[in-house]
Amino acid sequence: MNTTSLLGDMLQTIADRGKRFLFSAAREPSADPLGALQQQSEALLSSRGEASGMALARDVLERWQGLDAARQREFLQLLVTRFGPDTEKLNRAIAAYQDNPSAKTLLDLHLAAEPLRQELIRRLNLAPNGTASLVRMREILLQLKKDAPDLEALDADFSHLFASWFNRGFLMLKQINWSTPADILEKIIRYEAVHHIGSWEELRMRLAPEDRRCFAFFHPQLADDPLIFVEVALTRHVPAAISEVLRDDRDVIAAAEATTAVFYSISNCQKGLSRISFGNFLIKQVVEDLRREFPRLTTFVTLSPVPGFAEWLARERKAEASDILTRQDQERLAILDSDDWAEDAERVQAFQPLLTTAAAWYFLKARDRNGRVLDPVARFHLGNGARLERLNFLGDRSPRAMRQSHGLMVNYLYKLDDIEANHEAFAARGEVVAAPSVRKYVPADRTVRALVPLAGPLPNSQQDRQVRKNSKEFRA
Amino acid sequence: MNTTSLLGDMLQTIADRGKRFLFSAAREPSADPLGALQQQSEALLSSRGEASGMALARDVLERWQGLDAARQREFLQLLVTRFGPDTEKLNRAIAAYQDNPSAKTLLDLHLAAEPLRQELIRRLNLAPNGTASLVRMREILLQLKKDAPDLEALDADFSHLFASWFNRGFLMLKQINWSTPADILEKIIRYEAVHHIGSWEELRMRLAPEDRRCFAFFHPQLADDPLIFVEVALTRHVPAAISEVLRDDRDVIAAAEATTAVFYSISNCQKGLSRISFGNFLIKQVVEDLRREFPRLTTFVTLSPVPGFAEWLARERKAEASDILTRQDQERLAILDSDDWAEDAERVQAFQPLLTTAAAWYFLKARDRNGRVLDPVARFHLGNGARLERLNFLGDRSPRAMRQSHGLMVNYLYKLDDIEANHEAFAARGEVVAAPSVRKYVPADRTVRALVPLAGPLPNSQQDRQVRKNSKEFRA
Amino acid sequence: MNTTSLLGDMLQTIADRGKRFLFSAAREPSADPLGALQQQSEALLSSRGEASGMALARDVLERWQGLDAARQREFLQLLVTRFGPDTEKLNRAIAAYQDNPSAKTLLDLHLAAEPLRQELIRRLNLAPNGTASLVRMREILLQLKKDAPDLEALDADFSHLFASWFNRGFLMLKQINWSTPADILEKIIRYEAVHHIGSWEELRMRLAPEDRRCFAFFHPQLADDPLIFVEVALTRHVPAAISEVLRDDRDVIAAAEATTAVFYSISNCQKGLSRISFGNFLIKQVVEDLRREFPRLTTFVTLSPVPGFAEWLARERKAEASDILTRQDQERLAILDSDDWAEDAERVQAFQPLLTTAAAWYFLKARDRNGRVLDPVARFHLGNGARLERLNFLGDRSPRAMRQSHGLMVNYLYKLDDIEANHEAFAARGEVVAAPSVRKYVPADRTVRALVPLAGPLPNSQQDRQVRKNSKEFRA
Amino acid sequence: MNTTSLLGDMLQTIADRGKRFLFSAAREPSADPLGALQQQSEALLSSRGEASGMALARDVLERWQGLDAARQREFLQLLVTRFGPDTEKLNRAIAAYQDNPSAKTLLDLHLAAEPLRQELIRRLNLAPNGTASLVRMREILLQLKKDAPDLEALDADFSHLFASWFNRGFLMLKQINWSTPADILEKIIRYEAVHHIGSWEELRMRLAPEDRRCFAFFHPQLADDPLIFVEVALTRHVPAAISEVLRDDRDVIAAAEATTAVFYSISNCQKGLSRISFGNFLIKQVVEDLRREFPRLTTFVTLSPVPGFAEWLARERKAEASDILTRQDQERLAILDSDDWAEDAERVQAFQPLLTTAAAWYFLKARDRNGRVLDPVARFHLGNGARLERLNFLGDRSPRAMRQSHGLMVNYLYKLDDIEANHEAFAARGEVVAAPSVRKYVPADRTVRALVPLAGPLPNSQQDRQVRKNSKEFRA
Repeated sequence: MNTTSLLGDMLQTIADRGKRFLFSAAREPSADPLGALQQQSEALLSSRGEASGMALARDVLERWQGLDAARQREFLQLLVTRFGPDTEKLNRAIAAYQDNPSAKTLLDLHLAAEPLRQELIRRLNLAPNGTASLVRMREILLQLKKDAPDLEALDADFSHLFASWFNRGFLMLKQINWSTPADILEKIIRYEAVHHIGSWEELRMRLAPEDRRCFAFFHPQLADDPLIFVEVALTRHVPAAISEVLRDDRDVIAAAEATTAVFYSISNCQKGLSRISFGNFLIKQVVEDLRREFPRLTTFVTLSPVPGFAEWLARERKAEASDILTRQDQERLAILDSDDWAEDAERVQAFQPLLTTAAAWYFLKARDRNGRVLDPVARFHLGNGARLERLNFLGDRSPRAMRQSHGLMVNYLYKLDDIEANHEAFAARGEVVAAPSVRKYVPADRTVRALVPLAGPLPNSQQDRQVRKNSKEFRA
Repeated sequence: MNTTSLLGDMLQTIADRGKRFLFSAAREPSADPLGALQQQSEALLSSRGEASGMALARDVLERWQGLDAARQREFLQLLVTRFGPDTEKLNRAIAAYQDNPSAKTLLDLHLAAEPLRQELIRRLNLAPNGTASLVRMREILLQLKKDAPDLEALDADFSHLFASWFNRGFLMLKQINWSTPADILEKIIRYEAVHHIGSWEELRMRLAPEDRRCFAFFHPQLADDPLIFVEVALTRHVPAAISEVLRDDRDVIAAAEATTAVFYSISNCQKGLSRISFGNFLIKQVVEDLRREFPRLTTFVTLSPVPGFAEWLARERKAEASDILTRQDQERLAILDSDDWAEDAERVQAFQPLLTTAAAWYFLKARDRNGRVLDPVARFHLGNGARLERLNFLGDRSPRAMRQSHGLMVNYLYKLDDIEANHEAFAARGEVVAAPSVRKYVPADRTVRALVPLAGPLPNSQQDRQVRKNSKEFRA
Repeated sequence: MNTTSLLGDMLQTIADRGKRFLFSAAREPSADPLGALQQQSEALLSSRGEASGMALARDVLERWQGLDAARQREFLQLLVTRFGPDTEKLNRAIAAYQDNPSAKTLLDLHLAAEPLRQELIRRLNLAPNGTASLVRMREILLQLKKDAPDLEALDADFSHLFASWFNRGFLMLKQINWSTPADILEKIIRYEAVHHIGSWEELRMRLAPEDRRCFAFFHPQLADDPLIFVEVALTRHVPAAISEVLRDDRDVIAAAEATTAVFYSISNCQKGLSRISFGNFLIKQVVEDLRREFPRLTTFVTLSPVPGFAEWLARERKAEASDILTRQDQERLAILDSDDWAEDAERVQAFQPLLTTAAAWYFLKARDRNGRVLDPVARFHLGNGARLERLNFLGDRSPRAMRQSHGLMVNYLYKLDDIEANHEAFAARGEVVAAPSVRKYVPADRTVRALVPLAGPLPNSQQDRQVRKNSKEFRA
Repeated sequence: MNTTSLLGDMLQTIADRGKRFLFSAAREPSADPLGALQQQSEALLSSRGEASGMALARDVLERWQGLDAARQREFLQLLVTRFGPDTEKLNRAIAAYQDNPSAKTLLDLHLAAEPLRQELIRRLNLAPNGTASLVRMREILLQLKKDAPDLEALDADFSHLFASWFNRGFLMLKQINWSTPADILEKIIRYEAVHHIGSWEELRMRLAPEDRRCFAFFHPQLADDPLIFVEVALTRHVPAAISEVLRDDRDVIAAAEATTAVFYSISNCQKGLSRISFGNFLIKQVVEDLRREFPRLTTFVTLSPVPGFAEWLARERKAEASDILTRQDQERLAILDSDDWAEDAERVQAFQPLLTTAAAWYFLKARDRNGRVLDPVARFHLGNGARLERLNFLGDRSPRAMRQSHGLMVNYLYKLDDIEANHEAFAARGEVVAAPSVRKYVPADRTVRALVPLAGPLPNSQQDRQVRKNSKEFRA
């Protein structure tokens, strides 16, 4: 049964209903649109809002959508200044709590501290397509917030509510395939953020073959609009380069014969849901579902970009005293500034040990001023409990990858039995769990200067065997 | 298209998924189950909860369900005492706010005042069927709370989260009919709270005929389980007695010929969602949908019980000095204590004016110590903006109705154009909006003592014409 | 995913569409309804039928449904007499064929021999719900045919077309369970022909428990109306009595632990599809699907009634010279005429060998004048390739079973590897394939008279072991 | 509710089931594949076929698909020669019929005349995906038949069975839109036969806008594969050129404001269903459904190509003595041989009267040797009861249209009240019903030679008014 289509139907039903309103009324342009919006917002919070909530909510959202950018910003700021907590009540609640700290006074304090705009946002959600409108509102808010830190408090309210509304318990995992409605597929093309989909034909190559899968989370209220999706290749080896996965002329294998599931692209779809996290749940659920469907799968691994590597390396190359690069290294690396260094097989071979070692250092040792791992993709997977499994020199030769990471890609390994411990190590102690073959590039007892002469990484075939061996207890 | 079945499919998908777990682990009986639960709850709130949230959440919920009643209560109390806000942090936030009341300090205060158990409940919702389990947990909590007022704070958290999760924006309206899956229909039989459904045959009589409708709200996470439903009769007259609606041998009419939609039964289904209100939205949405489907419908009206009337009247009958009953009235009403007074046509006729007048008084004048209308059903419909339209003497001769209201039923009229004003009058000024034919029993300038000689109500046919006339601007 | 509900939706769509007509026209009562029907039928076959086929077809069917029984019969006879082949054309085609027997003249002969009414029936199928109406028409035809053998030719046309339209390739197998729409379940109650379903509660007992299954064939054009269904019990033993399957207080087992699937009731639903055979396909498909879902299932067996046994035995009891009953046997069997013989444990025990032996004889030796096995249920299962596996003395003590078969039930075993050979033996050579434990009651070299002293059947537990052993190669 | 998606689900279910087989067996390459096929075919017709029909049918079809083209042809011919009627039996039936022509002997004759291969084809349909395989088999048969007239008899059998199986009563009308699964849309792109769809973006332009519709017939057994589809534009005018319909920058109108539905493309999808007619039903059903959805629609009209016009005109241009072209006309028309005559506005204007008059003649007077209208598209629409409404000079300037019809397009008008009479006129009397504005070009009393000086057609705006006026009684 094609559940994606069912989903489409379901969402369609909801969307259609969304187009039908109670108590619709014509709206003439207002001389003071902001004042009108404020009034309506207050009405929505009042007892009138109880009688005519859906209509008022729709009116507020439509009016807001009709505002120009400057006024939208003014309205958001007004939400911060005018729809905060009732401070008198709050002060009384503080006094009562301080007087007698009990469950009752704590509760009252908590209620008094909640800004009115939270309830306003909840009531706006009554409108047809209210959730979608509010997600778009936050998208704008996030944009504006960069220059208006006072909007932070409003964003905190959105984050709070969205975390509750988009709780994983309310999300639906759906497979995306070549039988998925075109309007959803169109969005997959648009939202793909890692490896660009250039045409419907390319999309077909990612969805239709038997050894490809794609899964997305949907929310019942966001009609036909995925929240996040992941693309998966079912393979017999851990790929070291994206071309192994995406090239047109590859051999399609029988899905049931695959031993390895490769998560090669994960894209968030809704900017307005930024920092509401689903990716963790998505990957784990997909691992679960794939294991069920294909019992022969034993290895679950990503093939991931390293978006921060080139920038970091550039800093190290320019540094007066780099921890990892000798002056000589810095000179040799000048070649990275040429456009075509990767075309020259000889250079490439000579370079591999140096770049790979630097990459290991980047993951294992380099930290930002807050002590965090530099690479955002690494933070995501390591935070999910994955292990840094392999460094893939020139894994992606696309211009973007050459620019961001000198072509480097990496594999993160999801081994269910270790996920909790790995996560704990990373979250609690900031420790990056990596395979020995990665760790060996940065030996604990070795000085930085000495790193270059290290032998290059194993050929991929040997590496692959190693990865599989690392996964061997996986199915127990 | 039978959307109810689709819903069933959808919910089924979710439920099936719910049966599949990540990271399942055997659980041996614990020497200290409460301690174990507390530890797991803390783990769920910790960074471990981020890695293994679904599994931990499921474990906590399963463990809780396995506790005996006493320990369940202890755990709930522990949530109040140990999972409140971090008071040190709260005190610091209060100090910072008092020092400098800004958006930032307000936000921090609000966050600091939130009890940890709210986040705990949100994370418990990650479990498969988490929402259903939490609804059942609150059902137990509400039961326990009667004797344990300290649980109030916990209930406030549940209420807060449920109001957000069960926001009308997330509910799906579905028609219930004779093509609805039997497992859902079974629940309709079980949940019906107003006019008992004695058998599948009786259920069929309420769902299958062309002039009957039933609608329910569902939530995506409560598999196959309605939240609330309303039963509707499509008629040509406003019925004055439930027997007109439910009797076996009535004439079924063509739905398209109906002028009147009668909401004759509304039942909440989930005790654990007590006081999370849907009924208001349900009725208005159904009015909307029916108008769309049947443009000839002009009158939307309930046929409702009056559950508090007999109890109130009993007090007035015993009162030394009733406002409305003379000593002589009190004596005449002694007959209500007999089991079979309604069998005697003569008595019935003699009685009608007195009882009807008392009923008008009950609705229009009688108030509880908080100044509220006494009747809970009246509070619901008047609060929704309906108008008290007609008093139906002996509208329901079932033993329960005879006991609760001496057989009285009433109609509330939903006239969309007036809903907002009616609601406002009731919510803001405590004013009961009633049809003139009801109001005339309690004239402003008349003393209570004089009420008895009033003529009885109009025959139903005339009343019906009046109700229809009252609705005449309805469609404009 | 609940595919039954989806089916309901689908069928609903079709049915709804069926209610909408092109070119609807009022029909006044006709002075000569039969003449009008004939005219319209001719129009439907003419070129006008090509332009307005749906409307004309609907008119013909509606008019026919409005006729009284006598005229319906006249119309059917008119179809035989007036809508046969064009005899002139046929005679020419015969002449041409005899003149020159070629592919071309054969084809022309075949076309010329086809009665016009076949095309008429095909065009009537254009009407909304045409298929359902035609199935009902044949139901009436079959009734009338008993007294009007001239209708045989018309029934041959219906049979021919229905065999094509209800080809198994067009049927959909759907599971019936407790999530199936009530309107379909209602039909299951009504159509159940073997073990009466007395209430919705009894239905629930057959559908809801984990170890029960029910499957039905549906046709896309017969909205919500099953063609045939089978009820299955998943068990750990081959049951010898229907009470083991149906009693209220039995232990429900986990479906995954079952080793045996028992087909304990198969019911055809549409009288108008009499002799269009589905049962064979249904059982085999269900065997296939169950094996897939529950790999531990190794034994597929029926528990079946023996509807012709008592009647046959009555004849043997009265016979001057029975092949199998001695005069003494005949006297002893007089006791079967008492109402309560089965209540007396002593008699029952004494009787078992005699009755069981007679039963074996009934299956293995007794034949009707055409040489066919007497029992219709036996003919069905043996014709499907099943084997007569066990005779269950007093397997069903219901009044009907006592009357029809003195309580006898039997198991037929479906062993996929043997089905073809068994079918061949039965179809080609009239040979009844039976288990040795059945065959031993009628030894080839034994005279009939000597049969009585034979020992009774094995206790059920031993039998069961035997049945399982018989099935052991099943999964290879 | 998106029924297309539901359909997808349904079809998917069926297709999935199709992948599961009963009794599968390995097949080694055969020394005599044709002999093996014949044997299996005979087995399928024998009693073995009753026991193992699905497996045998699948084997026959798979084996057939594995044959090379030459052997496929041999097998088809073998079906003609070896699987005809049993001639002995047929001869006996003829004799019996001639001896005594009764309903019984007629029936026997009819049965005896049926070739065995009809039953064989019916049994092949038992195979999973049998229907689809048989449709493909006929596609090949139609190809081969061109050079092998002896295959005609086999095609007659396929036609006979397919007409029954694909009876309109079994077809499902589904809307195709931008929410339709991509695998179905892909087929729309592929099957579009009138106005090429160059890309997914072009497809989107035909499906997604509010004023566009597309409908297809599906059969339950042809998974995800439409039989025929029609593309519709909702407009305010009757378009005179395809560019009005398809150009990118046109103004999209609100569907509810449209007065006119334009059927601008109809494509059959399955070559193997050639001459099994659906188009008639499709158009009428779509007219019906659109009227229901958009009550303001009053005009239902096509914008159609004229594929035979140029070829016919070429003959007239070369003819020694054309009925319609003077020698001078023939000379003037030489310009049509240039590639770019339509680029020259002056020529175009001068040409319009001549070409339009010739076109009118082509439709109204020209006939093939069988007296049939020449244009196949005209035959289809006129045969459906449409009226030739307008000739659109240079309605399509695409190379194909310039080549086939010198750019001519026409509108056929579907006016429900006239359909039956129009069809009758055409089918019974070969009369082409045309609008007066078309007829006037070929006046009854005018000689052909005199036609040229006629004034050109009305400007489109006036024509449009006329078409609308012609439709005015339409809605009554």
